[in-house]
Amino acid sequence: MIIVVRPHSTREQINHILERIAELGFKPHISEGEHRTIIGVIGDENKLQAEPLAAIPGVEQVLPIMKAFKLASREFHAQDSVVEVGAPGRKRVRVGGGHLAMIAGPCAIEGAPVMDEIAGKVKAAGANLLRGGAFKPRTSPYSFQGLGEDGLKILRDAGEKHGMPVVTEVMDPRQVDLVNRYADMLQIGARNMQNFDLLREVGQVRKPVLLKRGMSATVKDLLMSAEYILSEGNLQVVLCERGVRSFEDSTRNMMDLSAVPNVKGQSHLPIIADPSHATGRPDLIPAMARAAVAAGADGVHVEVHSCPEKALSDGPQALLPTQYAALMKELRRLAEVMEKTIS
Amino acid sequence: MIIVVRPHSTREQINHILERIAELGFKPHISEGEHRTIIGVIGDENKLQAEPLAAIPGVEQVLPIMKAFKLASREFHAQDSVVEVGAPGRKRVRVGGGHLAMIAGPCAIEGAPVMDEIAGKVKAAGANLLRGGAFKPRTSPYSFQGLGEDGLKILRDAGEKHGMPVVTEVMDPRQVDLVNRYADMLQIGARNMQNFDLLREVGQVRKPVLLKRGMSATVKDLLMSAEYILSEGNLQVVLCERGVRSFEDSTRNMMDLSAVPNVKGQSHLPIIADPSHATGRPDLIPAMARAAVAAGADGVHVEVHSCPEKALSDGPQALLPTQYAALMKELRRLAEVMEKTIS
Amino acid sequence: MIIVVRPHSTREQINHILERIAELGFKPHISEGEHRTIIGVIGDENKLQAEPLAAIPGVEQVLPIMKAFKLASREFHAQDSVVEVGAPGRKRVRVGGGHLAMIAGPCAIEGAPVMDEIAGKVKAAGANLLRGGAFKPRTSPYSFQGLGEDGLKILRDAGEKHGMPVVTEVMDPRQVDLVNRYADMLQIGARNMQNFDLLREVGQVRKPVLLKRGMSATVKDLLMSAEYILSEGNLQVVLCERGVRSFEDSTRNMMDLSAVPNVKGQSHLPIIADPSHATGRPDLIPAMARAAVAAGADGVHVEVHSCPEKALSDGPQALLPTQYAALMKELRRLAEVMEKTIS
Amino acid sequence: MIIVVRPHSTREQINHILERIAELGFKPHISEGEHRTIIGVIGDENKLQAEPLAAIPGVEQVLPIMKAFKLASREFHAQDSVVEVGAPGRKRVRVGGGHLAMIAGPCAIEGAPVMDEIAGKVKAAGANLLRGGAFKPRTSPYSFQGLGEDGLKILRDAGEKHGMPVVTEVMDPRQVDLVNRYADMLQIGARNMQNFDLLREVGQVRKPVLLKRGMSATVKDLLMSAEYILSEGNLQVVLCERGVRSFEDSTRNMMDLSAVPNVKGQSHLPIIADPSHATGRPDLIPAMARAAVAAGADGVHVEVHSCPEKALSDGPQALLPTQYAALMKELRRLAEVMEKTIS
Repeated sequence: MIIVVRPHSTREQINHILERIAELGFKPHISEGEHRTIIGVIGDENKLQAEPLAAIPGVEQVLPIMKAFKLASREFHAQDSVVEVGAPGRKRVRVGGGHLAMIAGPCAIEGAPVMDEIAGKVKAAGANLLRGGAFKPRTSPYSFQGLGEDGLKILRDAGEKHGMPVVTEVMDPRQVDLVNRYADMLQIGARNMQNFDLLREVGQVRKPVLLKRGMSATVKDLLMSAEYILSEGNLQVVLCERGVRSFEDSTRNMMDLSAVPNVKGQSHLPIIADPSHATGRPDLIPAMARAAVAAGADGVHVEVHSCPEKALSDGPQALLPTQYAALMKELRRLAEVMEKTIS
Repeated sequence: MIIVVRPHSTREQINHILERIAELGFKPHISEGEHRTIIGVIGDENKLQAEPLAAIPGVEQVLPIMKAFKLASREFHAQDSVVEVGAPGRKRVRVGGGHLAMIAGPCAIEGAPVMDEIAGKVKAAGANLLRGGAFKPRTSPYSFQGLGEDGLKILRDAGEKHGMPVVTEVMDPRQVDLVNRYADMLQIGARNMQNFDLLREVGQVRKPVLLKRGMSATVKDLLMSAEYILSEGNLQVVLCERGVRSFEDSTRNMMDLSAVPNVKGQSHLPIIADPSHATGRPDLIPAMARAAVAAGADGVHVEVHSCPEKALSDGPQALLPTQYAALMKELRRLAEVMEKTIS
Repeated sequence: MIIVVRPHSTREQINHILERIAELGFKPHISEGEHRTIIGVIGDENKLQAEPLAAIPGVEQVLPIMKAFKLASREFHAQDSVVEVGAPGRKRVRVGGGHLAMIAGPCAIEGAPVMDEIAGKVKAAGANLLRGGAFKPRTSPYSFQGLGEDGLKILRDAGEKHGMPVVTEVMDPRQVDLVNRYADMLQIGARNMQNFDLLREVGQVRKPVLLKRGMSATVKDLLMSAEYILSEGNLQVVLCERGVRSFEDSTRNMMDLSAVPNVKGQSHLPIIADPSHATGRPDLIPAMARAAVAAGADGVHVEVHSCPEKALSDGPQALLPTQYAALMKELRRLAEVMEKTIS
Repeated sequence: MIIVVRPHSTREQINHILERIAELGFKPHISEGEHRTIIGVIGDENKLQAEPLAAIPGVEQVLPIMKAFKLASREFHAQDSVVEVGAPGRKRVRVGGGHLAMIAGPCAIEGAPVMDEIAGKVKAAGANLLRGGAFKPRTSPYSFQGLGEDGLKILRDAGEKHGMPVVTEVMDPRQVDLVNRYADMLQIGARNMQNFDLLREVGQVRKPVLLKRGMSATVKDLLMSAEYILSEGNLQVVLCERGVRSFEDSTRNMMDLSAVPNVKGQSHLPIIADPSHATGRPDLIPAMARAAVAAGADGVHVEVHSCPEKALSDGPQALLPTQYAALMKELRRLAEVMEKTIS
């Protein structure tokens, strides 16, 4: 930690800063330049970052040197983590370390026949994980909010029938047990990325978590939220880039694909991409799914619906099963170039 | 609702659109221009907005005409709402309709003596509502997370001693009952503005809710989140502008003060401003607090700490009690110009 | 300047960094911590900031300590600058140091009678500077582009008749001489804030410049652009906050009023606010104009048109003269509270 | 164009709107719904978009239906445009329609030997266009501003020696002739994307223009700026995505790769990507260059320097020639999958 002292600070102010640092149990290291005095602070930066050093009179800037996350960092775990999704004893899908997750399914679970139809088609196209929402975070209280437990059963049945582990969102700490009973992977949606009680709760579960980036979260924020889950003992976290809010008004969000190599440089956790939510436009999804694989993502999450115009949620951004099948062909060729496998 | 048909759409596609609209129980109204065909759709727009019309083949754009929120709108309630905070029988603080909320206190509740000292000082300076966090949403799992119920008791005691109703954040639906026992007003923090389960839960409570704008929420999103609370029957909602994420890196957030007149034009709900979180800089807080009152805000929320350099949370953005007292003097003069009262 | 060395760097890498610093004529100051090695670099930071130190192998971060601008800084000039607008010998309008600029007029100059009418009305309402565009930066090549020199003459005549110095935009370095012949103050528009050749050109002129903040410029960027003008010898620069791009789609831009106290803390230059472009909505302009004065702005820039529905540019965001007169009444009361004068 | 009338508007207001539309030479088409009256306006939308219809009293919203650009649109020119760069008679490089531009070189031209070295190396790696800046837009007036005409000569010589057409930036309308004498392709930088006088000036030239997206420009803004150039008669425009400003602070900009398929859907113009400026980080450039090709970009623009730590501009974001060569190998494999050629 480096403390830059405001110019024209008095000797008393500087001494007071030095004393506060010592009081907190750290070792200050003063260095007086021509224009500025700088104080290096040596000690456990994790503790230091929690202290309001910037509030000490005379302090101009506090510059942290180390990362704020630990368990999520490459320093802590140098190799790429591989997360396995699926019940033990059954076929499990590996994500990370060269293995691609191909997650597909409708936005919301609407009923057994539709889910069965979509599951069969995405499986045939090459998807290896089935998604669908039973609890839906909707901007309007008047929109369809999901089928709840009935939806979870429908998803589970379709997953078992078509041999795909299932991923579904959990929005409320009180639902974690219920969702855990049916899902192979628990999704934390973008709006809940900083719902810290929910993060702690899924940190207690021993199943993989798919953590989506919040709409205004930096890459560091995303890793700090992963740290919440990891610090509770659940090490099976897969991150997901799904676009952030921006001034561009022709797409639903702005997909920040650079988050993929950015995360991979500093963390061992797998990261996948969701071009459906990132763009909100079926005409852009295939290009961005390809780009994600080429950027090194560990998988692609796509919403597919057999009749988008009748979908109960996010119909306008769903691909048709035939479009998804065409996309999967392209993704397989790119996976090969990138030396990745789709289990 | 207006549907713009893609150029060169076939007669079959147009007919299919018209049929879908009729199937959904609405009345289409076709108008064929030189370059584009446009279909007006007449009926309850609230139902229409839930339908995936944009997913019908041949549809280029779907343009909503009416607002998506209802109970929060001026159309529903033309007069400014006045929210009363405080236990019945005691002195209650009015917010909205010409009455300003002056909310002050530390970021986190740290202990009874500090809280008592700060409460006494902000009360003397003119604050009418006392704030303090017992459950703290912290980016890092390693930061101080709040005192929980002990904190709530300390806050309640300080509020009673100094004659100020108290405001505190609730982060988890499971905490709502507990917080409700101690607080006069429940705060929903920025990170939880779209935690819909939590919104529904505080919608069940019969106490005022302070709903802070999310870091990437539009004004419309904020009003939609208020609609969640209102639609559960709790009509006592006060909104709060507290800055949004932006590229400007010299302030913690970007304060969007235009949200104040923007909300007032379309909603009857009171809206206050929080320059502490919006700027994160004590040197900017007074100017932005003044600006908020001049822009027509129904109150100002400021973090105050008697020793910011020892604060357990957000110390660097707290005002000293003397700075707060100086600010309150300025705000009283501006309140007079704006013909507002501070109860 | 502080250089943070990447963990696990070799001794050779560290030595190479030290050599490069010495080669560049600076003095390195090494400090080896438990987790990181840090190198303080002592010398003229302005020269240092131009060097690609971050590109030296082994360097993790380069942390500048000093500001990148000089002539624009409070360190260089501690007192508020007062800029005087208007021909010597005539009545001049002071901006800054307690004097408010009240700039009003139509977006584009459309003809002598309209300009005369508007000028008379804004003058009567209390404006002290007249604005109008003769060269218009329009997003579309098919929109009205301004009257050019004819427009400048119309503006000049109206200004002389009604006793107001005039402000108008210059977009092209080749127009500077021409515009300089007619204008009392040269405006650099938001889109040209980083048109560095144009900045240098108006830096050669000996008339005040109104420099508007770019749509994605930070406060620091704005001050760096001012530095371009100042470094050419023209010290009469007035800054203008006019909103930046954001995700909020109900206003034209997002007004960052905190830029006002933010600039004032680090620079001596006056800064005014333009709520017309910032919001693009006449229903929000008065509130934001009031907020600007309360935040400490040195003036307010408002577009006024006697018949907005026939305006050739930006009609929808213009105030009517009667609305402007009502606003000026409010602003005068606020100016009094803020202890400012309108000359 | 659709006009939505404010609820509770009077009959007089509606009549006035209808009269104004008729006065302007258009045909109104009224449709009265239960909650809102809507007026369709039939006629040339290009003219309509220039009219301030939103300023007519009683108008709530004006909804344009057609695109604001024409010559840049797919409606105007259905096939992908192919732009040829290079002097007639020499080997020319094709961009668009399946042909990839691989543009490489240093940020700034620093001297003949460095340029010669870099040119030789990027050519060997597979680049087909050589870049280098002689006029540099620098945030600080104290940074290196480029070698001017000397730099242009150096670039031209290196291009001729190594058989690569050259691309360089022009910043000032007064430099267009000079730059045109040396360059095969004129670049308009991000900061000048809305420098309309400069756009018009390069629109007069009969050489290809590389138009970079502004830091806060929407895709529509970018296409409108292209329209300025096209409307002057220069049809050889190549667009470039280079990142936009965002809240993410770990990358220089946020690369909006979805702009690539987004542009391709609505325009015939080629679009390339610049991961160097988009990310500002050599560790992210290769991944984002690959992603760009996979997303369908018509080329990649990368800054390469043989000694980044001594570069006079943007050293920290340059790739080393060896890194560039490794990247080009990957890009060639991806180009094959995408069925594109590098001439």
